[in-house]
Amino acid sequence: MTKSNAQRARGAQGGAMDLASRIDGALDAALTAYEGAGAPPRLSAALRYAVFPSGARLRPRLCLTVALASGDDDPRLADAAAAALELVHCASLVHDDLPCFDDAPTRRNKPALHRAFGEREAVLAGDAMIAMAFDVLARTSAAAPGRDPARVFALLRLIADALVPPHGIIAGQAWECEPAADISTYQRAKTGALFVAATMAGAIAAGAHPAGWRTLGERLGEAYQVADDIRDVIATEAEIGKPVGRDAALSRPSAVQAFGMGGAVARFEALVEQALASIPLCGGRQKLQQLIRAESLRLVPEEYLERAA
Amino acid sequence: MTKSNAQRARGAQGGAMDLASRIDGALDAALTAYEGAGAPPRLSAALRYAVFPSGARLRPRLCLTVALASGDDDPRLADAAAAALELVHCASLVHDDLPCFDDAPTRRNKPALHRAFGEREAVLAGDAMIAMAFDVLARTSAAAPGRDPARVFALLRLIADALVPPHGIIAGQAWECEPAADISTYQRAKTGALFVAATMAGAIAAGAHPAGWRTLGERLGEAYQVADDIRDVIATEAEIGKPVGRDAALSRPSAVQAFGMGGAVARFEALVEQALASIPLCGGRQKLQQLIRAESLRLVPEEYLERAA
Repeated sequence: MTKSNAQRARGAQGGAMDLASRIDGALDAALTAYEGAGAPPRLSAALRYAVFPSGARLRPRLCLTVALASGDDDPRLADAAAAALELVHCASLVHDDLPCFDDAPTRRNKPALHRAFGEREAVLAGDAMIAMAFDVLARTSAAAPGRDPARVFALLRLIADALVPPHGIIAGQAWECEPAADISTYQRAKTGALFVAATMAGAIAAGAHPAGWRTLGERLGEAYQVADDIRDVIATEAEIGKPVGRDAALSRPSAVQAFGMGGAVARFEALVEQALASIPLCGGRQKLQQLIRAESLRLVPEEYLERAA
Repeated sequence: MTKSNAQRARGAQGGAMDLASRIDGALDAALTAYEGAGAPPRLSAALRYAVFPSGARLRPRLCLTVALASGDDDPRLADAAAAALELVHCASLVHDDLPCFDDAPTRRNKPALHRAFGEREAVLAGDAMIAMAFDVLARTSAAAPGRDPARVFALLRLIADALVPPHGIIAGQAWECEPAADISTYQRAKTGALFVAATMAGAIAAGAHPAGWRTLGERLGEAYQVADDIRDVIATEAEIGKPVGRDAALSRPSAVQAFGMGGAVARFEALVEQALASIPLCGGRQKLQQLIRAESLRLVPEEYLERAA
């Protein structure tokens, strides 16, 4: 079997279950490394609580599907990138839920971390997960001497860009504290940055050019934001694991408020089509398109649309 | 002039003023990079507020003095390591000052960041500085193609270890939230971890073996903790730029409480002597010992001791 056949075979096996086990395996291994002798037990418990049981794992799954579509010739590095993306995402959820921001009572169908462990543990767990994201990537360099260090550095800088100002998710959250904010700048930073990082990270980890994957991340990030706005109006708290109706309650900008429900759904569908069309030519293009179509149906299920009609 | 003469000359010029300008130059360049078009202005201002005007810059100065003593053959990398150390230190100050922890009104002779910019900006500025610390290091890899990537990876992992559980400063702060904590485990993580990272980072940045520099960081970290306990009892708020008497008010463990003022001073002096004795044989050993002696007099000035007598 030639290498490219082997890669194709791996690509064909890369179903949803396989991705989930790769992602949760990488996250579990990372957390285990920080729970060694001498670690404060409540902080260790808070970190597990923030990361498990899994949410949708959208960003790491996006990263791994792009890596698979690009050949996935260094799967351990792709796994590390996926874990890093999920760690910074979990950090942002924990800090955004803090009393000084959203004061969210629930997240992923259980009490928000600051409700379960206290505000101090929530601050520290978020801080730790940011540092752990970089550490997980930096440690891959020692694990495989033949690994291309340029890929690891590119991934480290990509994750940093997705976090820091001017355009990362921390800047996105900071726009909520500014006297005035451009809505599209705000949403690109708050939601889009990590989706763009996810698609580009998958490419970088597999040694592909990342630039061609930017549009996919941008469109999916925007689609996700619109879907989130739709769910906030239509879904029940049990369905999405967090309170609904928060956009109206917190006077946050929303696609439903801007375009009406019908307009928001049309916008969501258009963004998904643009995302599909943007996928660069590569061995796994068709499979990736199928996965993204399936994903989009999970984000805004048909039953929501029937409910809205 | 041979290379080693040039290095000696640079070592001789490495006085306090030179170190300060290297450190503040590296920090200013880092912050400037994150203030580009599209950055949220209040977050940019909060980040500058957290980093400037400078505090004692103990950790980055320690890093650069060790780098100089070890030949400092890649000064830009040493500067990046120094900036990364100060960024994570500033992040820890901003988060430790939050209402849910110390609720500190002042820091470095001005209102604490959450008092000046609000709690939300304080959470975000701390988050950003943690990510920026890794970014500053990761970006050095692109700046100099001839740079040894192994040094950069070692520095990234060192900074991560100094932050994350089981033994980093986040774990140190987390011990304050546990029902029970071993005092020396707590202090080693909360204060010692970043001093150890500082000495070892200086060695790594200059291509020297870091292991021999661990004891210097450990002893100086412990000496700093004892000095902090002494100042908390003896100094005025104006002298140290933050409230005094906090250990007693917050029932925190303190060397003064444990050993009395005389015992604490004796312990401080013994730790400084052990630190000096631990310095590995290297070209800059004598100069480094002079600097540390001078530093120790700044930490616990003679006038404090007269005041205590």
